[in-house]
Formats: sequence, C-alpha cells, structure tokens
Amino acid sequence: MVGSYERGSSMSPFMMNAWYVIANSGEIGEKPLARTILNKKLVIFRTASGEYGALLDRCPHRMAPLSFGEVIGETLRCGYHGLAFDPHGKCVSALLGTVPSGAKVQSFPVKLAHGLIWMWAGDPGKADPSQIPDFSFIDAAMAENRWVIHDYTHVQANYQIETDNLMDLSHIELIHRGTFGGRGVIQNGKFDYQSSEKQVDANWWMPSVPSPLPDLPKGGTGIIDHWLDMRWHAPSAMRLQLGYAIAGEVDPPNRESANRGFQYHILSPETEKTTHYFWGGTQSTDLMGEYSADMTRGALATAFQNEDKPILEAVQSNTVTDFWSEKPLSLKTDAGGVLARRALEKLIAAEEGALAKG
Amino acid sequence: MVGSYERGSSMSPFMMNAWYVIANSGEIGEKPLARTILNKKLVIFRTASGEYGALLDRCPHRMAPLSFGEVIGETLRCGYHGLAFDPHGKCVSALLGTVPSGAKVQSFPVKLAHGLIWMWAGDPGKADPSQIPDFSFIDAAMAENRWVIHDYTHVQANYQIETDNLMDLSHIELIHRGTFGGRGVIQNGKFDYQSSEKQVDANWWMPSVPSPLPDLPKGGTGIIDHWLDMRWHAPSAMRLQLGYAIAGEVDPPNRESANRGFQYHILSPETEKTTHYFWGGTQSTDLMGEYSADMTRGALATAFQNEDKPILEAVQSNTVTDFWSEKPLSLKTDAGGVLARRALEKLIAAEEGALAKG
Amino acid sequence: MVGSYERGSSMSPFMMNAWYVIANSGEIGEKPLARTILNKKLVIFRTASGEYGALLDRCPHRMAPLSFGEVIGETLRCGYHGLAFDPHGKCVSALLGTVPSGAKVQSFPVKLAHGLIWMWAGDPGKADPSQIPDFSFIDAAMAENRWVIHDYTHVQANYQIETDNLMDLSHIELIHRGTFGGRGVIQNGKFDYQSSEKQVDANWWMPSVPSPLPDLPKGGTGIIDHWLDMRWHAPSAMRLQLGYAIAGEVDPPNRESANRGFQYHILSPETEKTTHYFWGGTQSTDLMGEYSADMTRGALATAFQNEDKPILEAVQSNTVTDFWSEKPLSLKTDAGGVLARRALEKLIAAEEGALAKG
Repeated sequence: MVGSYERGSSMSPFMMNAWYVIANSGEIGEKPLARTILNKKLVIFRTASGEYGALLDRCPHRMAPLSFGEVIGETLRCGYHGLAFDPHGKCVSALLGTVPSGAKVQSFPVKLAHGLIWMWAGDPGKADPSQIPDFSFIDAAMAENRWVIHDYTHVQANYQIETDNLMDLSHIELIHRGTFGGRGVIQNGKFDYQSSEKQVDANWWMPSVPSPLPDLPKGGTGIIDHWLDMRWHAPSAMRLQLGYAIAGEVDPPNRESANRGFQYHILSPETEKTTHYFWGGTQSTDLMGEYSADMTRGALATAFQNEDKPILEAVQSNTVTDFWSEKPLSLKTDAGGVLARRALEKLIAAEEGALAKG
Repeated sequence: MVGSYERGSSMSPFMMNAWYVIANSGEIGEKPLARTILNKKLVIFRTASGEYGALLDRCPHRMAPLSFGEVIGETLRCGYHGLAFDPHGKCVSALLGTVPSGAKVQSFPVKLAHGLIWMWAGDPGKADPSQIPDFSFIDAAMAENRWVIHDYTHVQANYQIETDNLMDLSHIELIHRGTFGGRGVIQNGKFDYQSSEKQVDANWWMPSVPSPLPDLPKGGTGIIDHWLDMRWHAPSAMRLQLGYAIAGEVDPPNRESANRGFQYHILSPETEKTTHYFWGGTQSTDLMGEYSADMTRGALATAFQNEDKPILEAVQSNTVTDFWSEKPLSLKTDAGGVLARRALEKLIAAEEGALAKG
Repeated sequence: MVGSYERGSSMSPFMMNAWYVIANSGEIGEKPLARTILNKKLVIFRTASGEYGALLDRCPHRMAPLSFGEVIGETLRCGYHGLAFDPHGKCVSALLGTVPSGAKVQSFPVKLAHGLIWMWAGDPGKADPSQIPDFSFIDAAMAENRWVIHDYTHVQANYQIETDNLMDLSHIELIHRGTFGGRGVIQNGKFDYQSSEKQVDANWWMPSVPSPLPDLPKGGTGIIDHWLDMRWHAPSAMRLQLGYAIAGEVDPPNRESANRGFQYHILSPETEKTTHYFWGGTQSTDLMGEYSADMTRGALATAFQNEDKPILEAVQSNTVTDFWSEKPLSLKTDAGGVLARRALEKLIAAEEGALAKG
C-alpha cells in the first residue's frame, strides 16, 4: 500500500484513454439521448443510415442542448434555431440559409460492440477498437438465439465504490439476502485472486454448499459446488461467470461444460460522485435455461436497484474526500477491489506522466 | 465586437438606475407578496388607501420576513412580534407599546403605470417616472374597454438569455411549431434592425406567406403580408407589434390602420440566473377581435411556459460563466439580441464609471 | 452588549462539554436510528439487554452507515459485510472469521434520564450525569401514573433562533392565535427575568386577563391571573411552567398548589442551520386534568410545527452570517433570549480558552 494513500486525492479521477460504455444500443432510437460521461454533457444519437454520434450537448450558436433537437437524415438538427450537425460534429445545414463557416461541435469516437455503444474518452488518435474489453459471450448468445438482457441503473456514488462492491462478493450474504444471497454459502467459500496490468480476477469457490436458489435445474436444488468468478478490466468493466455442479461429481468441475452463465457489470463515471451502471446477462442453455429474460431482469434489477444502490450511495455520502483518505480497514476479501484500485492508479499516473512529458 | 468579450464577466450583471416591473397590479391584493428582485428579497404590498410599498422582506427586530405579516391600515405589520411599518419603511407602531427609535427597513420607490408596478432599483434620488418605458397601448385598451391580459412566468435563466430569445424571433419556426410557428414564414422573411442608446428595434417583414394561424379575420386565412416588430428598451422591457394585411393590397401596408395587436414582454432579474417574465397583451378590434382574453392567454402561456422556458433554462445550464465567455457563434438574425447586449453593457459601464468617480 | 457583536461569528457555534438530547426513549426500538448531532453523523441503538449506544454512523471497513445494519444481541452489526460493534465502538465479531485487530468506531457517552437519551458531546472524561438539567417533573408524572408526551419536530434553523423564540413568549399573541394565543393576554402582562452562569429565567405574569383557552377547569374560563415561566439551562434545554388562578383570589397565587403544568423544550443542534426540537409535557391533575395526552400533543404539534417552524426557518434564511452581524433591534422583551445568548457565548469562550491553554 506504500504511496497510494497519499497520491489518491490529487490524481485525475478518470482514465481518459479508454473505452467507456455510454448506452446500450436499445436506448438509442429515433430520439437523441442526453447523458453526461466523465463530467462532459453529451448527446448520443443514431442517424437514418445507422451511424452513431456522440457530441457535446451544446449548440455553438446559442448554447441550446442538441438533445432538444431531432435527427434529420444523417444529421442532428438543433431544436432552437436549426443548425444541423453530422456525427463528426460538423455543421452541414442551417434553417435560414448559409452555414456559418467553422461551425463545429466537439465529437467523440464511438463504436458499437457486444450490443453496447462505447466511447473513447481521450485522444481520438489513440482510439483503437481492439482495446474494447471482451464481452463476446453476448455475441455468442445472440448468434445462438439465446436471450440477452441489457439494463441500466443510475447510482449516486463514485464508480470505484461500485467496483469495490462487485469485486468483493462476500457482500451478497447480508445485502442480497432478499434475492440470491443469505444462505451462508460465502462463509463456506474460498477466495482467490490474481492481477495483471489491466485485469484483476476475484474468484469464489464454494464446495458443498446449499443451492442459493430453490429451483436450479440439473441437480442445482441440493448440495452443490458453486463458483462466482469476477474479472475486472480497467478502468471499470467487469464480467461475472457464475456456475455450479452437483457436489463432488468432478472437483474441480470442468467449467467449459458445466452449468454456467455470464453477466456484465460495466461502470461509466457520470461525475466523480455519480455512475452509470450498465448491466446485463445472457441465457445459458444449462444454468439459466429455466429462467426467462423477464424473470432474470426482474431479479437482478431488484438486487442492484433496491439492495446495492442504497448502500453504495450511503458509502459515497460517508466519503468526505476520497477513498484512501478515509483510511479504510481492509479485510482479505477486499483484495480484488484493492488490486483494481492500484492497477487503475498506475494507469492514470502513467497517462498523467505521458501528458507532463508530452 | 471588440472588447466586449473580455468585459462581460467582471461587470455588474444589472443596470441599477432603472425601473423594473416587480408585479402586475392584479398580483397585489390583501396579502403582501414576497419576491426577490435583483438579488434583493422584497415584500410588495398595498395599503388600505391604495398606496404601494416595496420593502426589504426582513424585520429589523428578529429578522422575520415582513411578507409573513399583514396589512393593517396604512402599515404592514410583522407577523412575529408586531412591529408595523409604513410604505416608506418607517416603524410606526409596536404591539407591546413604545416604537423603538430609529426602527426602519429599507424601502424602494414604486410607481403604478400601465397596470404594472415598477420599482426603481438604484439611487432613490434619481427615480424619475418619465423614464418608465412606453407601454401606453395597455392604457389605450383599458380606456376603450378592450380586454388586457397580464400574466407571469418564472424562468430559471439569466434575463439576457430571454432577451436574446425575444429579439430573434426566427426561433418561432422550430420552438413554437406546436402553437403559432412552424409554417416556414420566417424563412421567407426579411430581417431589419436599428439601435440607439437605450432602444433596439428588431423587425421581421414577411411578404406573401401563408397565415400562421388558421382563423385570422379580414383575409388573414390566406396568403398575407405579415410583420413582427420587436422593440427593446433598456434594460429589459420589450414591446411586440404583430400585424398583417392581405398580400400585396398595400405594400408596405399602412400599419396604423392595419390588422395589428400589441404584446409586452418584460424581464426583471430575480438573480443572475433566474428571471421574472411578465407578459401580456391587449385586444385589437381587428387582429385579435375574434379571440377572447382567455384563449389568447392560454395560447401564449403554452408557448412561453411549455416551449420557450425549457430551452432557455437549458441554455442557462449550458452557460458555465457568462454569455461571451461561451464564444457564441452569431448569425445575422442575432443582431437584435447582440445590439441589446452591447447597449446594456455600455449603460452599466457608464453607471460603474460614475460610481467610481463619485 | 459590549464585545459580543464582534465575537459572534468567529466562535465555535456549539458548547461541547454538555449533555444534548439525541432521542426520546420511544424512538429507539429494535431498529437503529441515524441522526446527526452537532454535525456528527451518529447511529443510536439499544442492545438486547437494554444498553444504549451512540456511535459514528460509519463502518471503518468500507464506510457503510452502521444504521443500515441491525442489532444482534449486544452488538450493532454492519449490514454491508458484517463487522459487529459493541456500544463502546469496539469490533467484537466478523461475518467471515477473524476480527481485524484495532477495529473500532468512535463512541459517545450516553445516559437515559427523564425518558430522554442524553449524549455528552465533548471530552468523555468529563461526562458527569449530575450535570443533566433537572426535568424531574417528567419522572414525577410517571411515578404518579399521569400521562407524559414526548414528541419531536425538525427545524431548519439555528438552535439559538429557536431559543430566542422560546425565551420571548410575546410571540404567542400573533404566531399562535390559531392555537393558544391571540387574546391580548401578553399585552397586559409584566415581563421579568434573571440570569446566572448557566441559567436564565424569563417570566410573564399576566394578572386579570381573559383565559386563553375556553375550557380550563377550576375557574379557568373567566378572568384569571396567568403566568408563563420559562427557564433556560445552557446550552439549550428549557422548562416551561404554565399556570393560573382565579383573578385576585391570592396575589400572587401560591404556585406549588395552583393549577399548573410543565413542558420541556429541548434543542439539539443538528448542524449550524438545523435543529432537533424535542418537546413534551406531563399531565397535571389540575390544569391539564381535562385534556387527554392525544389532545395536548395535537395542539402543541400544530403550534410548533405549523406556526413556529415556518417563521423560524424564514428567520434562518434571512440571517446571512450570524445573529449579531444582522445588528438586530432588541426590545425589552428580548432580555431572556439575549441573556441566554450572552451566557452561552461566555461558556463557549471559556471552553475555547481552556482548549487553547490545554
């Protein structure tokens, strides 16, 4: 922990050269969407031909939000006096005639991947779609006609408070006892982790525990070997693999062929103190075979909205300046969250170092 | 534009030696009214004999708002412990006996004119009723028993953002297409303007356009010659003349005898970021002959409350410091608003110069 | 008044070495209560054996409010990851095994007295229960099976604004004319006061006045000799004795044997600008004999919530910095409030002087 306590509060709160999810594709229909990302007020829209745009939500003429306007062909037209902009922010038409020369609004690189719209927040020249984290389990489900759910929860807490929550699933025992926690399975688990420059794995292996859900197929109603594997990718995108096998049949079970499913938990900072929480999951023919998309969405929404969100927001309001200044007492199960914080601090410091030199 | 970009943010936001509307007379009945004008919390009241008063809304005894009190004869009595003040702010009676010597609350000169209550915000010695802008069309209508409407909308935006809106009526094409805009008449118009020290005219002349309203009398349902003449008087009082003639009958039509009506649009800053928008109009025997007061009020309220207000408030929230610091891109139709801003900047600078010398 | 005008704003706003009411005992049941006292966010709880605790409402692990947790035996367990603390703030158990060494949360001395829970805000070594102000009239009523009411009103005003209100009951004439004031009794009264280091008495003696309530027993419906004696104890606990006798029967009447009752009015600062107002009263076999607890509670709640609270909050919003900086104009009936302010300023200054030396 050497050094990181002091550095925390003076650093940039965000990694800039990174892809952030700004919407799921179902959110962007005929109407433009206003959303603040990393303190920037943006308008997100899709043109008639299907191109996505993310522009500063402010017409350079009289500062009206472009999100009050409408998509006209390949442009977003301001609803106040009618200047129209293409997805790259260039003004291409005006209601009353001549397009003012140089009329432009800042645009950001956007990319549709895994049913999600990603935006590159930093230097546009460095935007490389291959750096979008791997959520191909979503594409696989779509290709196989299994259901996919995409949903969203707004949280009034710093995104790293929510990362801590997701990287330490021991919280399910008390927080989620109204939904999928509370049967003591975590207390019987083993916790393991590993980390690299941009990735942290925080895994729970819980052998011979009572099933946390009453109606799991294929032997899932009795005593099971259960696992919850969370993988974080910098700055704040997480993938959860959850699975089980009949206790002791194979130890450890072959996960590729086991009863398992996947979820995504992706956090995009709105401001330092508020977060867009994009979450979803896909149907697994095994584990989730018996659950409909609506049932799954409903259960997860209850857990994230009613159970996690209030405590995360309360933690935020109890955090006077920044996390490390609160001198938190860490337990061994905090390793995943702490390693993710450390990795991100190094990445941000490297960006700032490069800026200082550049 | 030389110089004005830099000056903007350090200047006083308000002209002080000026008359501001603080209420329409219908708002001040038996109960005193609390209203903040130019950041000053005021109480406005009318005594039994009909005299109006505008005092700081703060009893000098224990700081209760005088607006919690009640009018007793020629005084406003504090509702907390009973000190009573005349319209000039002098304490003239006390519930428990002796009037404390020197008990006084700050008062402002007020004047009823054109059915509106005007307050002089600056040096009381300079308050000259002849400087109240000319809205005698209201008095004329009252004298002829034509209806007059007075109404009010609170707007969470700087008053000059609303001045810009009113001085550039090209916004009616998109913003007001739900009420009286949207038929392309503005695109076929000619825009002209002129300015002097305290006055700016911004006029639209739209020959041979489709009628913007479906039921105008005297040939107003077909192709008309249409005009919208807005006159701004410093700091923020506007008069709109709107009229039409059968296209080409007389070009330009004789406006004195034409189908025309008048409206007022008067802005009084509540704070730097919020505005009291007083608006109204009178019945014209020609143009508005077929419209009742209620119909007219309803249509205007819809336009100002539901169509203008949201965009003005959004422009305010997109204005980080002040207008010029946003480096707005101006079109030719912005001339009226820009000239009004320049004229007001000069008037405020002159006041500040006089203060610095004085 | 020498000196106090200037000192006001730079001093600590609170006396620290003092007992403050943080709840009435009826408020603390099975669930812990979150409440901010003197700017400190606290959780107040009662263990299974009946011991009360007041801790900072912030788990030292991941900063969740402990008030989201639950009482488990003699501990309060955090609802996020399960650390459990005793009433002295020591962590005594953990959900996932080992208790982290040194895990502790700040605790405050608490004491149940007169049906109220008192907290010592300053140096725990100086907490002396004998300094809790005398409200033994509550215990006497409980011992005699007379009813006692305890209630609570949150007020968005500094506690001293409310002290001023309670120490100058001349406000009942106008403010409480909807409940128990407004018959001119105060105008016929004599006001007297006396003060010592930590106590101020502000007493109204109103001989031969009409009864302020229409249904007082034992001659209380006609012309009465009436008194209202308020006693303030530093920093902000007040006791009201209210009574009457048939006018002139005994002058002054023997108060010990007269028709009289008692109320408490105790103010605990939440912040500099918000106050917990704890109030209540007891049944007097004489004065209040005909009134039920519910009737009394209802009448008092109406008076304090609907009549006092709005004006106190408006006074707060009219107080830009602090009371003395507003240069209030004081009347003779303000003596009680002013003396209480002076006494408290001296006590706070003495504390600060001791701190500076220490």
